[in-house]
Amino acid sequence: MSITVVGSVAFDTIETPSGRRERCLGGAATHFSLAASFFTDVRVIAVVGEDFGPKEEAVFKAHNIDTTGIERAAGKSFFWEGSYLDNLNEAKTHATELNVFGAFQPKIPDSYRDSEYLFLANIDPVLQKRVREAMPGVKLVAGDTMNYWIKDHKPALLEVLKGLDILVINDTETRMLAGNNSLVRAAQEVLTYGPRMLVVKHGEYGATAFFGKLKDGLDAKTFRAPALPLEEVVDPTGAGDSFAGGFFGYLASQPELTAGVLRRAIFYGSVMGSFAVEKFGTERIASLTREEIDERFQCFVELTHLD
Amino acid sequence: MSITVVGSVAFDTIETPSGRRERCLGGAATHFSLAASFFTDVRVIAVVGEDFGPKEEAVFKAHNIDTTGIERAAGKSFFWEGSYLDNLNEAKTHATELNVFGAFQPKIPDSYRDSEYLFLANIDPVLQKRVREAMPGVKLVAGDTMNYWIKDHKPALLEVLKGLDILVINDTETRMLAGNNSLVRAAQEVLTYGPRMLVVKHGEYGATAFFGKLKDGLDAKTFRAPALPLEEVVDPTGAGDSFAGGFFGYLASQPELTAGVLRRAIFYGSVMGSFAVEKFGTERIASLTREEIDERFQCFVELTHLD
Repeated sequence: MSITVVGSVAFDTIETPSGRRERCLGGAATHFSLAASFFTDVRVIAVVGEDFGPKEEAVFKAHNIDTTGIERAAGKSFFWEGSYLDNLNEAKTHATELNVFGAFQPKIPDSYRDSEYLFLANIDPVLQKRVREAMPGVKLVAGDTMNYWIKDHKPALLEVLKGLDILVINDTETRMLAGNNSLVRAAQEVLTYGPRMLVVKHGEYGATAFFGKLKDGLDAKTFRAPALPLEEVVDPTGAGDSFAGGFFGYLASQPELTAGVLRRAIFYGSVMGSFAVEKFGTERIASLTREEIDERFQCFVELTHLD
Repeated sequence: MSITVVGSVAFDTIETPSGRRERCLGGAATHFSLAASFFTDVRVIAVVGEDFGPKEEAVFKAHNIDTTGIERAAGKSFFWEGSYLDNLNEAKTHATELNVFGAFQPKIPDSYRDSEYLFLANIDPVLQKRVREAMPGVKLVAGDTMNYWIKDHKPALLEVLKGLDILVINDTETRMLAGNNSLVRAAQEVLTYGPRMLVVKHGEYGATAFFGKLKDGLDAKTFRAPALPLEEVVDPTGAGDSFAGGFFGYLASQPELTAGVLRRAIFYGSVMGSFAVEKFGTERIASLTREEIDERFQCFVELTHLD
């Protein structure tokens, strides 16, 4: 079943201990949709400028991603420049130019309206809410956010959370959102805001899923997936969005949501995150095969299972 | 089969966000032997002062721990005072008084000499090496160390590592020991120093086992165990030593070392670490039952396994 994702499509200039890349294709919606495309059909809602050309379009097309909802506006695309020279776990931002993204008003193509899965990537919660409300027929809604919205736009964010089934954020964001330093207590608190499942990403240590009351009496227990111990992290940009894409893409590919499917989805998220960091920008995920994904999934099982 | 452990038996004054305790029974050998005692016979080599009385002795005796090798010296026992007010993952040391521990010369009782398992807890590598050499008949030797010895006593430490089968240290120590910021590459490097198995403790995120060439063609793959997501960490002191005790205690209780046994041992280590932090000092482990341990082991399986 198809996923509609709304978020940023951008150009990133990135510097890490492994090198530097100028104006890679990036943005949350880009990383998410590429990762999800290995599992199911993906439709993107975003805005780009005149610098988004056939080369960038081709990356989406090569993965059968529907770009009908990528609006072309006069001006330049969202641009971000950052480095991870001291700490691969935390980006240092050198420039953020919103450009056409600053006036982004998501428009949902009619052909997207039968999507059963909706992912609200990290954008202004006011826009997230508008997209959510414009697609009342979706079966499952997941979303992401970041410290900026938690800190300065909390009321709008809490409105979005009411309409989410699944929230995918990191440790720090979870603690900040709930105002509680205990991750477990913070997770329990966040689950009272609306989401029935909270996926907390731990960066190099994997992710933990916490569950509230699920539909249909489904009883799912806390689940923790590791991250693959990697020799080298070339570029962490987009790892979290790739995680979300693998996670939600796998969910959308399954006929039914069961506790087992939710666990496998977390594993697939972790698998896609582990690939994302192996090269700059979208390079690794764009060249991936489904066989490689399933092989690494098996590595994750061997890494964590007793027998 | 019995384990002999050499290390510190001490008094700790600890302050955490949950409160303060004066002069709890502590020390690496104490935490290790209590945790290991649930799995196998444990014999301790340590030195204490006149402040170590029947009350402290009783904690060991209640767990059938052999204290023949705990030497009584004139003076006071090793004392440490620290707090975790800002960060539960890192102790701030306020006082370290070596006292009788400063002149510690480990003496191995004759009744300990048939031990097949030896654990060298975190003490001066010169003493670790001496104990290792005095017990040439042991079947398996594991050990711990800390940043202080890595930084300022590396040649002596490298001598110890040559005689170790298993090294149990944390992320920072692994990177520091190998001089490599990539944990995986650092682990590979450390495995060339002697140990055939390296267990890297990740604090609240669990532990990863890396393997070099094992005896008898045993082929073990990298394994990662989670830590239990806990609502409240009351006192992290001794968590790493309790992990080591659970890990090595379980190994010593098994008739044979297999890949599966090594994985289960890591899980038991993580289980004991998760109990240790629930109360101050040795309080939680000292009141534990084997049933509780196996119940939590089962929780760990549910937390990590797909089905």
